Amino acid sequence: MSMRGFNNIFPIGNKNDAYAEYFIGQSYLNMLSTTGVTIGNVTFEPRARNNWHIHHNGGQILLVTAGRGYFQEWGKPARVLYPGDVVNIPPGVKHWHGAAPDSWFAHLAVEVPAVGAYNEWLEPVSEEEYNKLK
Amino acid sequence: MSMRGFNNIFPIGNKNDAYAEYFIGQSYLNMLSTTGVTIGNVTFEPRARNNWHIHHNGGQILLVTAGRGYFQEWGKPARVLYPGDVVNIPPGVKHWHGAAPDSWFAHLAVEVPAVGAYNEWLEPVSEEEYNKLK
Repeated sequence: MSMRGFNNIFPIGNKNDAYAEYFIGQSYLNMLSTTGVTIGNVTFEPRARNNWHIHHNGGQILLVTAGRGYFQEWGKPARVLYPGDVVNIPPGVKHWHGAAPDSWFAHLAVEVPAVGAYNEWLEPVSEEEYNKLK
Repeated sequence: MSMRGFNNIFPIGNKNDAYAEYFIGQSYLNMLSTTGVTIGNVTFEPRARNNWHIHHNGGQILLVTAGRGYFQEWGKPARVLYPGDVVNIPPGVKHWHGAAPDSWFAHLAVEVPAVGAYNEWLEPVSEEEYNKLK
């Protein structure tokens, strides 16, 4: 799908090979800061999303910069995200995020520093679940 | 000056009255996160800038989202900033940031968490210094 009209403010970086096993579809990762606070620009092609996952100890803050996508907590309806939206994900909450079916999507991911912070990667968001989203 | 062509991705918030004494010109502040990591959207009208200042203990990361502005460290030439630029300001470095004369400017300011973090506010950037910038 064309990137026409998709204004990815921060550089897209490279294919997100390091985390590819935890994603469906193609994503791109560009680390903007690795000192002080870790911040990455994550870009998703249409339909791309990460698996359900949990940030343990440290949480993560999403700052949406381009396109249209979703954030969903386990057991709750998905929230549609547009540029300017912010999601503050507490540690311990099972969730996923990614692009809408018809749009590229980009957010900054700010890692909340914490002793012993790690991600627990879980099952993919199934096509059946994803296809229910608008 | 008109905001035409200035695409402030994140909501501008209110006039930055809390820090007005440390700024020249009008700025706006919208806190995007106050939990985990403190993140604010700071918007500057043309010519607006903060005073020289130092982040002690914790540093600050600027993520430029709109317009054109500057970052300058004491004793170094000013750096022109555009959307997509990132400035990782270490603790202890005297610096200022703000808008270009002919453009609005917006950046996210990410506070690096640290024990005993505080800002030391110093002298304004004089008109003479500022007017040398292009």
